[in-house]
Amino acid sequence: MIPIVTLLTDFGLRDPYVGQMKGVLLSHCPSARIVDLTHNVPAQDVGVGAFFLKKSWQYFPEGTIHLPVVDPGVGTERAVVVLRRDGHLFLGPDNGLLSGVAEGAEVFRIRDDVEISSSLSNTFHGRDLFAPVVGMLANGKPPEELGEKMSAEDLVVCPLHESKIGARGEIIGEVLFADHFGNLVTNLEVKTLSSAAKVFLKGMAIPLVRTYGEGESGKLCGLVNSFGVIEVAVPMGSAADFLGAKRGDLVTIKEH
Amino acid sequence: MIPIVTLLTDFGLRDPYVGQMKGVLLSHCPSARIVDLTHNVPAQDVGVGAFFLKKSWQYFPEGTIHLPVVDPGVGTERAVVVLRRDGHLFLGPDNGLLSGVAEGAEVFRIRDDVEISSSLSNTFHGRDLFAPVVGMLANGKPPEELGEKMSAEDLVVCPLHESKIGARGEIIGEVLFADHFGNLVTNLEVKTLSSAAKVFLKGMAIPLVRTYGEGESGKLCGLVNSFGVIEVAVPMGSAADFLGAKRGDLVTIKEH
Amino acid sequence: MIPIVTLLTDFGLRDPYVGQMKGVLLSHCPSARIVDLTHNVPAQDVGVGAFFLKKSWQYFPEGTIHLPVVDPGVGTERAVVVLRRDGHLFLGPDNGLLSGVAEGAEVFRIRDDVEISSSLSNTFHGRDLFAPVVGMLANGKPPEELGEKMSAEDLVVCPLHESKIGARGEIIGEVLFADHFGNLVTNLEVKTLSSAAKVFLKGMAIPLVRTYGEGESGKLCGLVNSFGVIEVAVPMGSAADFLGAKRGDLVTIKEH
Repeated sequence: MIPIVTLLTDFGLRDPYVGQMKGVLLSHCPSARIVDLTHNVPAQDVGVGAFFLKKSWQYFPEGTIHLPVVDPGVGTERAVVVLRRDGHLFLGPDNGLLSGVAEGAEVFRIRDDVEISSSLSNTFHGRDLFAPVVGMLANGKPPEELGEKMSAEDLVVCPLHESKIGARGEIIGEVLFADHFGNLVTNLEVKTLSSAAKVFLKGMAIPLVRTYGEGESGKLCGLVNSFGVIEVAVPMGSAADFLGAKRGDLVTIKEH
Repeated sequence: MIPIVTLLTDFGLRDPYVGQMKGVLLSHCPSARIVDLTHNVPAQDVGVGAFFLKKSWQYFPEGTIHLPVVDPGVGTERAVVVLRRDGHLFLGPDNGLLSGVAEGAEVFRIRDDVEISSSLSNTFHGRDLFAPVVGMLANGKPPEELGEKMSAEDLVVCPLHESKIGARGEIIGEVLFADHFGNLVTNLEVKTLSSAAKVFLKGMAIPLVRTYGEGESGKLCGLVNSFGVIEVAVPMGSAADFLGAKRGDLVTIKEH
Repeated sequence: MIPIVTLLTDFGLRDPYVGQMKGVLLSHCPSARIVDLTHNVPAQDVGVGAFFLKKSWQYFPEGTIHLPVVDPGVGTERAVVVLRRDGHLFLGPDNGLLSGVAEGAEVFRIRDDVEISSSLSNTFHGRDLFAPVVGMLANGKPPEELGEKMSAEDLVVCPLHESKIGARGEIIGEVLFADHFGNLVTNLEVKTLSSAAKVFLKGMAIPLVRTYGEGESGKLCGLVNSFGVIEVAVPMGSAADFLGAKRGDLVTIKEH
């Protein structure tokens, strides 16, 4: 079987950083099929990286190995871990990036003395540490041989993904990021909403629709998006430009 | 034979949308070789998407399957179609995006009840509908099994690609987009030009040259570019910045 | 063996230029595994392209073919060359782009009449010339059959990569580019530094650290980065924004 390896980083596409990582990975496992999830996670934003991973891994076939690297603590003492669940493997820094996929996972802490052929830089573990180790995993080496089992509960937690219920029953969350279309993606995982419910953001009461096509062109609307969370959009326009909203802005949903 | 699948979207590279699509495609057809044409079609700009597809598919080998997705009508009643011509397949929304490749094509309208294993979101058919169907095509399922044949003349037409002849014999077209280098690409498909011909844009009379190297550094020039259309460029500079020109601006060519 | 082909260009990811190149390459060599080093070399900046190539090729396995295309002289008389060293091949324009990998290389000048099946545009040799030729190399055709051997000393040299020693023993170099994180990457290849050494840029005396984590958040620091050169960074921020520094700005290192 050809192993699929996904990459998810904040390295951007301007420099050859991602290309160098792929070179090292292919040096270790020439048959690996590499898929970019995205390399444009906002710089050092572990929370958005964790959200992207949580919402994307399940679209890949069993046997896929996921390598997310958003790693502001590179060169410090943070651990490196492998998670295994549902036939998928995840390798990354233990800094909360894996929070969204930890449920029910077996966890292994990679040994500090794991044998990698390259020399280890202080600034680019994506290339010098993660790529060789993911190459070993892609070659079939089981995580058991790379480190000790640890409890999933001891993983660093990234506290981003939870919305709260307010005093009057309103659902309270925040804007996570503006996507490529200027849609404001929130952390509100809402399953069922009454037709009277409205989204409140930056003092605006925003009606909910089912599809972009149902929204009014150039006007704000809210909907459950393809991540399964509430987003605020402007059909044929940009809600981010319209509202000037940004990461961390408060969003609430009130049913009446 | 390893099937090649090209992707052409307006999803951008900031979010994991393209990566999720690839995951679904590889789940259906693990051997597919995926090539990105570009994911930076201007948001919802079906015309530029149609131009990119028309000018790119022929560089791929026979047997390639092309999946263009620029789909402002996602979640509405627009049809989904497969085109077959010259040994290539094209899958996409019937919204004009396939206009440039329809000539001489067999066309199939995908049945609404085509069996896809994933659940269908209202906002992301690229991942939930197009990726599974393109996976079936990549596995060798013929379009005949996915829908009914229809006439190519019943496809929605995108009226972008035609220049006109004016009252005094001048050729009249428009700027389609500014490319990465700031070159202003037009819809003027001109085969032969007299050496006296000039391009007129934003009140400037711009001389024609054969190569960027023939143009004067930092000055405007016009030439037939690698798409086979007239573009206005500034060697070692940006014509888009120089002229402040944009999509839809009028361009004419006069022979004298 | 599946041949790996790396691409390094200034074509950007907005247009289908890179996709068209890949189509032509796969038409010639369907089994090629293509890896993007980056397509965001600053437009026409041969020096940065040469730096990226020099610092990246060694991360790929033997047998890899590298295709860098930053080619402001496209359509003029500049030669096309293949270099062979350490089991790697490099194909590109002879304009200095290959300067960083020329040491110890065998060099071949591609014949003008090399048989390529496509027609040759004046503006896009990446697609019309380089992609077919790299396809031939990927199919195993030796460079000896594509052109005549020439001396590596006759290659065009890009004079970028050298720092100088000043009158008082200070090391003098320049800023090459700002990377995705706003780190200012210089051409200073420094192996050992005393702990008293400081980097001087834009009138600031900047302390040296070992890792980003050692630097103070929001404050300037200098370190040896993953390219092996001195960079000036702002942990959790952007040195490029902080200093307003740009390509060519003078950088010096003084030991006391």
